[in-house]
Amino acid sequence: MTVDPDGTVVGVDLGGTKITAGLVLSGGRVVDEVTVATPARQGADAVVSAVVAVVQQVIDMNDRHPIGIGIGSAGVIGDRGEVLAATDHLLGWAGAPLAASVEKATGLRTLAINDVHAHALGEARHGAGRGMGVVLVVAAGTGLGGAVVVDGKTMIGSRHLAGHLGHVPAAEAGDLECACGGRGHLETVSSGPGLVTVYRRAGGIADDARQVVAAAESGDETARAAVHVSGRALGRAIGGWINMIDPDVVVVSGGLAQAGTIWWDALDRGARGELIPLASGCPILKSQLGSRASILGAASLFADTHRYQEQHS
Amino acid sequence: MTVDPDGTVVGVDLGGTKITAGLVLSGGRVVDEVTVATPARQGADAVVSAVVAVVQQVIDMNDRHPIGIGIGSAGVIGDRGEVLAATDHLLGWAGAPLAASVEKATGLRTLAINDVHAHALGEARHGAGRGMGVVLVVAAGTGLGGAVVVDGKTMIGSRHLAGHLGHVPAAEAGDLECACGGRGHLETVSSGPGLVTVYRRAGGIADDARQVVAAAESGDETARAAVHVSGRALGRAIGGWINMIDPDVVVVSGGLAQAGTIWWDALDRGARGELIPLASGCPILKSQLGSRASILGAASLFADTHRYQEQHS
Repeated sequence: MTVDPDGTVVGVDLGGTKITAGLVLSGGRVVDEVTVATPARQGADAVVSAVVAVVQQVIDMNDRHPIGIGIGSAGVIGDRGEVLAATDHLLGWAGAPLAASVEKATGLRTLAINDVHAHALGEARHGAGRGMGVVLVVAAGTGLGGAVVVDGKTMIGSRHLAGHLGHVPAAEAGDLECACGGRGHLETVSSGPGLVTVYRRAGGIADDARQVVAAAESGDETARAAVHVSGRALGRAIGGWINMIDPDVVVVSGGLAQAGTIWWDALDRGARGELIPLASGCPILKSQLGSRASILGAASLFADTHRYQEQHS
Repeated sequence: MTVDPDGTVVGVDLGGTKITAGLVLSGGRVVDEVTVATPARQGADAVVSAVVAVVQQVIDMNDRHPIGIGIGSAGVIGDRGEVLAATDHLLGWAGAPLAASVEKATGLRTLAINDVHAHALGEARHGAGRGMGVVLVVAAGTGLGGAVVVDGKTMIGSRHLAGHLGHVPAAEAGDLECACGGRGHLETVSSGPGLVTVYRRAGGIADDARQVVAAAESGDETARAAVHVSGRALGRAIGGWINMIDPDVVVVSGGLAQAGTIWWDALDRGARGELIPLASGCPILKSQLGSRASILGAASLFADTHRYQEQHS
């Protein structure tokens, strides 16, 4: 198979419920996307096989020859694309040599990073952070995470853990128990389930964040107050992060970024109220790529490699 | 003047009350240190002249020929070593072309960065963070600031403001007014003056943080409680930052780092209580360099330049 001179890459978003692969053209356009359910209870080999199958499908759908495969995967992912740690969402996932296995099965060079890191990289390089030097991406959905991307590189930290933004103390969280085992973390009030918690504690009844937001927008005062508290807590934290990190831009993504004006107003005002005067110009923007951010970010791991190869061949 | 082949540099720490310069040998040893009072009320030209004079004194004290001057200065410092913004501590400081003026007067290449950034760089390169990849330096004294140093480079952010760690929301700060104009920021309870505030609100009487710490160590229960609250608030914030940034090590410096075991215990326990399990191994260390960190950090700006010149000449 000859290498595509345009640097086409297969991008993969590997989550606990589904796996999506797409062919990413060098300009950042995704074509020929395929999604399958993740065999989450069947062990690491089954998950890797599913990734290989969906990648092969995407490759077979057209006559381009990708230069490699970039995977954004659930779990803590090491420098060689191996799974250093993972929750039980994906049974037996910890320890899997993800990139090496996919590379062996497909014959294509494969790179892997954490899915939130890939998501942030996608928004920074191709989405709302495009062209910026320092981008803070905040992903608020089922969990609360994110990453700082500096000059097109995600900061992954010493243990590949960086970006656990939800696990910072927040006054609004009191001593609510967090999924991590700690207490009073921002995620307990500002993730999707956190918003539901805030609403329920005020007497509201809802199954998920979408219902709380819908109730708020149709005039339910308890729901409005809950959306306000939850969004404002995240906004205040974002304001502090702007003071700390001084990004060119903050990009807010995830399911809650679709929560409408009550949430966004609370978030924006909460953030602005914390900013030191010199940082007051920092924009806070809505993400642009939605679920494609991870695929684009994972594929973009090859951007530098490809340029490097061009320059040195 | 010939250039010292060992890469000796004059390091300068330029603060609101004093200016210290020292000759920094390439291994990170400081010799021939000179300190003068900062002519803080006499305008930027007077301050630059004082810097030039003290640098010249240091140079004249020995027969080495430094390759340049590295300055860690109060204020927000731009890419060309110019003062982008400053408080009234140094009258007329904003706008001063600091590095260019010193370079012109001395004939030596001059680089300048913010003093807190220089301090963090010094601790990361030559102090408690030596040999580490990602170092979070937290400086707790009159103010509360710091920086993240990655592979020997300080993250300065988009507007050269990064590291305003004191201006994040903290539950313990309630709605206390902050020096920045905001409310409820960590600095209002966890800086030196913040500790005094906490003590006074509990009925204690003290002029400065040192007195509160001394009272705590001699058994004053109100002072003990204040030191505990103030240290624990900083610790909780540090715990959150470890989860976010995933540093190899956290280095705590500044006057409060000398506050003894009550403060350190509260800080350490506060931080450990917030950590996600995978980050639990992150060390939190006391700084090693004291006031010399800034001089060493500022001088180290030449380390890469010098190596570069060696490699390409």
